[in-house]
Amino acid sequence: MKIRTIDWDKNSIKIIDQTKLPNEFNYIYLKDIKQLFAAIRSMKIRGAPALAAAGALGVVLAAYNIRRKKPGQFIKELLRVIDYLSTSRPTAVNLFWGLERMKKVIEANKNNKAEVLKSALLSEGRKIMQEDRIACRKMAKAGSRLIKNGDRVLTICNAGILATIDYGTALGVFYQAKKEKKQFRVFACETRPLLQGARLTTWELSKNHIDVTLICDSMAAVLMSEKKIDKIFVGADRIARNGDTANKVGTYNLAVLAKWHRIPFYVVAPLSSFDNNIKTGRDIPIEQRSCREITHSYFKKPIAPSGVKVFNPAFDVTGHELITAIITEKGILRFPDR
Amino acid sequence: MKIRTIDWDKNSIKIIDQTKLPNEFNYIYLKDIKQLFAAIRSMKIRGAPALAAAGALGVVLAAYNIRRKKPGQFIKELLRVIDYLSTSRPTAVNLFWGLERMKKVIEANKNNKAEVLKSALLSEGRKIMQEDRIACRKMAKAGSRLIKNGDRVLTICNAGILATIDYGTALGVFYQAKKEKKQFRVFACETRPLLQGARLTTWELSKNHIDVTLICDSMAAVLMSEKKIDKIFVGADRIARNGDTANKVGTYNLAVLAKWHRIPFYVVAPLSSFDNNIKTGRDIPIEQRSCREITHSYFKKPIAPSGVKVFNPAFDVTGHELITAIITEKGILRFPDR
Repeated sequence: MKIRTIDWDKNSIKIIDQTKLPNEFNYIYLKDIKQLFAAIRSMKIRGAPALAAAGALGVVLAAYNIRRKKPGQFIKELLRVIDYLSTSRPTAVNLFWGLERMKKVIEANKNNKAEVLKSALLSEGRKIMQEDRIACRKMAKAGSRLIKNGDRVLTICNAGILATIDYGTALGVFYQAKKEKKQFRVFACETRPLLQGARLTTWELSKNHIDVTLICDSMAAVLMSEKKIDKIFVGADRIARNGDTANKVGTYNLAVLAKWHRIPFYVVAPLSSFDNNIKTGRDIPIEQRSCREITHSYFKKPIAPSGVKVFNPAFDVTGHELITAIITEKGILRFPDR
Repeated sequence: MKIRTIDWDKNSIKIIDQTKLPNEFNYIYLKDIKQLFAAIRSMKIRGAPALAAAGALGVVLAAYNIRRKKPGQFIKELLRVIDYLSTSRPTAVNLFWGLERMKKVIEANKNNKAEVLKSALLSEGRKIMQEDRIACRKMAKAGSRLIKNGDRVLTICNAGILATIDYGTALGVFYQAKKEKKQFRVFACETRPLLQGARLTTWELSKNHIDVTLICDSMAAVLMSEKKIDKIFVGADRIARNGDTANKVGTYNLAVLAKWHRIPFYVVAPLSSFDNNIKTGRDIPIEQRSCREITHSYFKKPIAPSGVKVFNPAFDVTGHELITAIITEKGILRFPDR
């Protein structure tokens, strides 16, 4: 089954509405920037590498929609859109990286006609997507070398096809290992509150015939204590200069458990997830999301008393000392002491 | 608000249907053993100490319902009911302890008339409930000494009023601390899959004016790394001779995190939760429950693809080396090295 997480189609951004998975698989077309902003914020599209493309295609979409085509006005409007999109979600650095790439195209074309700039922006958006495709396959090949026959691997959230253009970071490693005919099985943490592990990861792994077992986040420790997990692979939303990694909340928990049980813990992420402006994980902004994600979303009825206080960070930071290695498209970065 | 988790009323067992909380608060009357068995298995009534009472009152209920009153037949029938109830759930030892107490009453009255035995069973059932009430208050007083002003404490599942006759084990400690006018706040892990933390613990703590914040299970690690948790208090379903403790799945995860972050980890449980027949936690039977608890229960629609494999242990075992102390009605049991 061919899944296309995000694409440019019919002068619109075409995405899968991921909030509806696994019960409904629908493509939707985002026709203006407000629709895109809402889709990013509500996580119809999510995943750090996919957000780089979403940001970049957002600038293309704006360029197609802006009526005032005087170069100065056109560029001013595009820069305003970039500022606006950069407020949609704060943690994944790839979004800003994608927008930054588009800014450079605007700068390079500042003396050109709007039509020329528009076309340059679309070609840059497509290039970003193509680069992600290639990066994912390179990470997958590098990571797959770590998978041995018989391995039981654990992952959290969705770092797969649905989080990238079309292959995945952590899950890409599994797709490659499968391609190489390795025998292994995956345990997927359901990933509360929005259940990306249950809804998205088990869905795409099953579609691709990978043996997957769903667990609640709190059950990973049981598997580890029973020596049923050999390796852990996760994605990343932002990596600081020292290797500290922000990823979906629950990742840090797994990393501590992995250290305690002496299980290798791998981060799989493209170089676009590295933020060289940030020295350590302490400086990574962590998005706090609505209480209702925990108490209401996906439930028939609220699962907590009305008005209860809730703490809902969307991400956490795993210190580099808990990470065995980071797998990128340029190879495996090992910490010297590990 | 007076909450009565379980009671003998109108020749029936009166319980709160806990599966409906927090949206509906209803008492239901269990009029025969099959209804009781179903209520235990579906967790309308749950919590280790409450299950001791449920088992004991189940024998009373049987005694009231049995028509054949010839002593031999009557006792044979009662013993059959005890065997049947002991298959309702495997992990909490309190259920077996409660049934064992009733067996002794049967033994002691084997030469008496059915009516005498019936009345002895009811009085034993009431005694078990009264003992639990007293034990909870003693544990609460012992445990409350560990709570300091300003403490931020964490708990999982529901070890409160709803898990006992009427005061709680871990949450009883908080009720007592509140009574002593201590200032503290509680973080409650939602406790997937059946959300006893979200549905029951925040509900009963709020009703009793205790400052409570709900988190997903995977977020406890974030709070600990930010030094926002001072102590952890949990209940127990079965404690082996060496102190290894089975409790709701997720407890072992918290205990590892607590050790890693150097946070005291306390188990609060009555002596009826100790199983002296069992040497270590490895021998505690762990209940595996339905996949649908993870993929379907409480959700509007299934949250995972149909047919996905699921691992759903209802409990896990925390090694005694991770436990700072066990708080019982006879005082605080500290491990020599801690």
